[in-house]
Amino acid sequence: MAYTHTITIPSSWEESVKLTRSALAKHGFGVLTEIDVRATFTQKLGQESGDYVGDYLILGACNPQLAQRGIAAEPQLGALLPCNVVIRRAPTAAETTVEAIDPQTMVKLSQSDATREVANEADARLQAALTEISATVDN
Amino acid sequence: MAYTHTITIPSSWEESVKLTRSALAKHGFGVLTEIDVRATFTQKLGQESGDYVGDYLILGACNPQLAQRGIAAEPQLGALLPCNVVIRRAPTAAETTVEAIDPQTMVKLSQSDATREVANEADARLQAALTEISATVDN
Repeated sequence: MAYTHTITIPSSWEESVKLTRSALAKHGFGVLTEIDVRATFTQKLGQESGDYVGDYLILGACNPQLAQRGIAAEPQLGALLPCNVVIRRAPTAAETTVEAIDPQTMVKLSQSDATREVANEADARLQAALTEISATVDN
Repeated sequence: MAYTHTITIPSSWEESVKLTRSALAKHGFGVLTEIDVRATFTQKLGQESGDYVGDYLILGACNPQLAQRGIAAEPQLGALLPCNVVIRRAPTAAETTVEAIDPQTMVKLSQSDATREVANEADARLQAALTEISATVDN
């Protein structure tokens, strides 16, 4: 089962990160957390592990209004938040992959209509952000 | 479908946070991210929203070795990482809830045996951390 929406773009690593942040902001997401997986692996597991994974960022994107509605409906929903957006580029890759968690998939784990509605809206926004990135690159 | 392992403990908010951090560290998890939901809601949505949600932390727990194995097996796995541990206490509650995402549930989204093995190990560790917290409180 696919649990992400994925695009690949020919942009450089730096440009891809910038485009992703900008598209998320434009579609109502703040970035609350950020994990530099390459740096973390390098620090915790050694240089070789960092080099192997390549450039790899996990951004935790959150729309506060949606998060509030979700948590009000289902207090434990924080365990599924924020919505992760991964930007990654393997060492030899010619393209950068940008992929957002599919909130629809996540709420299959949930049973509440309210959280499904929140997921629908989060999903629409995340997909709009990815479309925005692709469109920016194509222009 | 339950997607968390949950315990409730009679400890104060501060003590619960301290116990959770300590148990996670003891069972091999570093905390890579931390979202103070009350503070975020207060800042973005206003005081009333922060007060309504109560004390609510989302810790992003990560065991680097497991994360590395998971990402090596399935590059997009970062979209499901880190493992969230929620500590929450509603304004009028007499107990604090500590709940960890159930990695077994998460990898139902995945199709790889390798990620299932990683999830099994992460799950065992997270459950051990919760057991540790409960045992500490009981003693």
